[in-house]
Amino acid sequence: MLEKIDLNKKVEKKDYKAAMDQASERLGLLQRECKAAGIPVIVVFEGMGAAGKGVQINRLIQALDPRGFDVYAFNRATEEEQMRPFLWRFWTKTPAKGRIAVFDRSWYRSVQVDRFDGLTPEEGMADAYQDILSFEKQLSDDGTVIIKFFLYIDKEEQKKRFKKLDGSKETAWRVTKEDWQRNKEFDRYLLMNEEMLEKTDTDYAPWTIIEALDKDYAALKIITTVIDRMAYELEKKKAAAGREEKPVPGARERFKNGVLSGIDLSKRLTDEEYKEKLKMLQKRLSELHSEIYRLRIPVVIGFEGWDAGGKGGAIKRLTSHLDPRGYRVNPTASPNDIEKVHHYLWRFWNNVPKAGHIAIFDRTWYGRVMVERIEGFCTEAEWKRAYQEINEMESHMANFGAVVLKFWLHIDKDEQERRFKERQENPAKQWKITDEDWRNRAKWDAYEEAVNEMLVRTSTTYAPWIVVEGNDKHFARVKVLETVVDALEKKIKERAGKARGEDKDKG
Amino acid sequence: MLEKIDLNKKVEKKDYKAAMDQASERLGLLQRECKAAGIPVIVVFEGMGAAGKGVQINRLIQALDPRGFDVYAFNRATEEEQMRPFLWRFWTKTPAKGRIAVFDRSWYRSVQVDRFDGLTPEEGMADAYQDILSFEKQLSDDGTVIIKFFLYIDKEEQKKRFKKLDGSKETAWRVTKEDWQRNKEFDRYLLMNEEMLEKTDTDYAPWTIIEALDKDYAALKIITTVIDRMAYELEKKKAAAGREEKPVPGARERFKNGVLSGIDLSKRLTDEEYKEKLKMLQKRLSELHSEIYRLRIPVVIGFEGWDAGGKGGAIKRLTSHLDPRGYRVNPTASPNDIEKVHHYLWRFWNNVPKAGHIAIFDRTWYGRVMVERIEGFCTEAEWKRAYQEINEMESHMANFGAVVLKFWLHIDKDEQERRFKERQENPAKQWKITDEDWRNRAKWDAYEEAVNEMLVRTSTTYAPWIVVEGNDKHFARVKVLETVVDALEKKIKERAGKARGEDKDKG
Repeated sequence: MLEKIDLNKKVEKKDYKAAMDQASERLGLLQRECKAAGIPVIVVFEGMGAAGKGVQINRLIQALDPRGFDVYAFNRATEEEQMRPFLWRFWTKTPAKGRIAVFDRSWYRSVQVDRFDGLTPEEGMADAYQDILSFEKQLSDDGTVIIKFFLYIDKEEQKKRFKKLDGSKETAWRVTKEDWQRNKEFDRYLLMNEEMLEKTDTDYAPWTIIEALDKDYAALKIITTVIDRMAYELEKKKAAAGREEKPVPGARERFKNGVLSGIDLSKRLTDEEYKEKLKMLQKRLSELHSEIYRLRIPVVIGFEGWDAGGKGGAIKRLTSHLDPRGYRVNPTASPNDIEKVHHYLWRFWNNVPKAGHIAIFDRTWYGRVMVERIEGFCTEAEWKRAYQEINEMESHMANFGAVVLKFWLHIDKDEQERRFKERQENPAKQWKITDEDWRNRAKWDAYEEAVNEMLVRTSTTYAPWIVVEGNDKHFARVKVLETVVDALEKKIKERAGKARGEDKDKG
Repeated sequence: MLEKIDLNKKVEKKDYKAAMDQASERLGLLQRECKAAGIPVIVVFEGMGAAGKGVQINRLIQALDPRGFDVYAFNRATEEEQMRPFLWRFWTKTPAKGRIAVFDRSWYRSVQVDRFDGLTPEEGMADAYQDILSFEKQLSDDGTVIIKFFLYIDKEEQKKRFKKLDGSKETAWRVTKEDWQRNKEFDRYLLMNEEMLEKTDTDYAPWTIIEALDKDYAALKIITTVIDRMAYELEKKKAAAGREEKPVPGARERFKNGVLSGIDLSKRLTDEEYKEKLKMLQKRLSELHSEIYRLRIPVVIGFEGWDAGGKGGAIKRLTSHLDPRGYRVNPTASPNDIEKVHHYLWRFWNNVPKAGHIAIFDRTWYGRVMVERIEGFCTEAEWKRAYQEINEMESHMANFGAVVLKFWLHIDKDEQERRFKERQENPAKQWKITDEDWRNRAKWDAYEEAVNEMLVRTSTTYAPWIVVEGNDKHFARVKVLETVVDALEKKIKERAGKARGEDKDKG
């Protein structure tokens, strides 16, 4: 496919200057309009080594207001970055509404340059493609415009450029032995790139191939593509503004009597049972914490539940004997103004734990399908597609080797009332109860329906929901601890089995 | 000093439980009050190896609401962190108003553990102490409460604890060969710590020594210290609330006719001179950019100036031939809500360039002594101490090896009016001019006075101000480029000289 590209396309110097000036002005205007319309834009530069990505990025950004864009270069993942799922470093850099992010190399590294260099194992390719596709889909659904360029030059031209760079003291460091290897095996590397272009050329994020022999020609084609796309997206957004999203008619009855109504809330533990089990489990958990640190296993634990359901108490018992350097509790409040202008999953991506660490979330990304759904903070289309988006995120973490657990702390309506009143009467606990808690309580049935749907749609083998019978706090805390201990033991055993298996293969 | 500490202090189990419960409730209350009062708190844990920092931090945070604190552990600086001035990783983690940051080791590493391990050179000690003192002073002046603990155990106890850790598979990794070395040379290491305690025990950030043999005793002393300090600071803040800050009487006349009135604005370049010089300088700058990347020299360039003074155009000419992977333009707008709850320098610390990179600031931290001073966005005491704070920050960067330059783009009032009108008449430039620009213009004299004072007080040998005659844009752009080129050449030569000097020493 790529070898058919006509690399002789050229533009005259004087034509270039006039066309570029005009295009720059137009792009500056579109940037301001996209900013006003709150449209985030990602421009990805990929391509063959020495195809001139740096030069082209610089020409493009000259036309932009520097207050509105960022340029990120992605080299091989650092040690720090390798300790997180592969999409982490890209997710955390996705642009806020109205901003432009220019990516010099991107998540595509994993399926071409890192693949060629042996950093992405061949058996990981299918996952990598799936992760890339769902990442771009999620951003695009949320309104991010993704523009992808592939800069192409042929083997001979690349060789010539490498030699030239190598020949000067100031630029020689830019050409690595891996670069030379990719030139030597140009055809094999080309195949990887072609596979990438084919597999990831989608309606919502299409590729544009840039013939990169003539720099002026390339610069014009790039800026024109960006202009056309931005103009198109602005038009689309304007056209959509008047239209109302049609609410999909009913048929959610099945979640009215779902999982929650079948939960046995009479489960209890005596004081002695509680003390004994708690002590034993906390000690065991502390040992396992060392073990997962040593084995570099990341752990994600989410807590959701009714107000006053006992999340705080459960988290406290879970963490009280852990080494604070190895865990973090991330409380989730209403999004702040930085978080509001990003994808709703962005702030959770920012808190993905490093390998070997535990991240506990006190309330989670499931707010999207509960409070945001019920209070109308997002559209129906948004919360409906959130189930799949969340499953994709959790599956990405699980593929990276993480333990992912989600607890729903369940109590009944009477128990909640009892606890609310107790809080109001206790001066040390009054701050815990607000008018909002009472307001939420009035919407119990709507929440129950939403929770039932959530439990059914997002409890997966790789990231299960655990409904915790919470009327008795002791029972609840012990169940949480037991579940975490079991899950960690299972994962550690799995790892040990794998390690033994590998040893056997070697032997 | 430390060897005189009585390590036999103990507390009975049952007394501990009761006292700790009471203290925890009190601390929870104080945390909420400090949050409401917007007081940021830093709690630093330092001490001898195996003194139990992890255990003590965990006991302390159990009493805190997890939505209000963060724990940071500071190991040896990573490669990434070493590429920035040493305070960078601490500055970026300073708590927002109302939050608590717990630091497991801190900036003090540099003067004890890293010093012992040979990572901080002895000739860098004086700078390190000065940086630490001004860092704590700046935070403290801004309202941050700094609580510092030093956990002490003696040589024998440490040896016992190391052995115990070493004896178990799960904990052996915690004891490094450096730990053993510090135990072997306990007295030498102790001396470094005592020097640290003496040199950095200040009124605004005093040390508390914790006898750390008995964990319960230590935990109680720590929580009590934190409680007392937070209660004290709340009281102080309440008492100060009524009082008005007295404006200092006049005597700023000397800045009314200062630097700016002596600037010759008639300087001009012909079109030919401009084109020729621009081309030559941009080419040279591009070569130097490679060179500073190779030599890992960080570069900080700040732009200030009158509205329509030509900052944007100058920045564009400066960057148009640079590799975008090696520079970043940081535009400075009004602070967002995250930035507002931090020290005013915090957001600039977040953008300190890595070694080898150029950070260009389009407007800078000097906003504190210009717009914030004139519009009353900060108090008189705040902008007055800002001169020194800024000098300290720039000196810290310079000590790290950075080139630091600040440009004031100067035009006269008539020229500004001409440019404003031109912008209003040009449809492609209208967006650049707002009512605020006209309002600022009305305050020309107040700004001129502030700028004169700023130029005098913050132009230093290590970070000079360059006033650029800006009525002729061509002249201004060339002057900026020439100044940058000269400064980079000088620094590169200096480095080369140093490198040769070192070679000689070796030879």
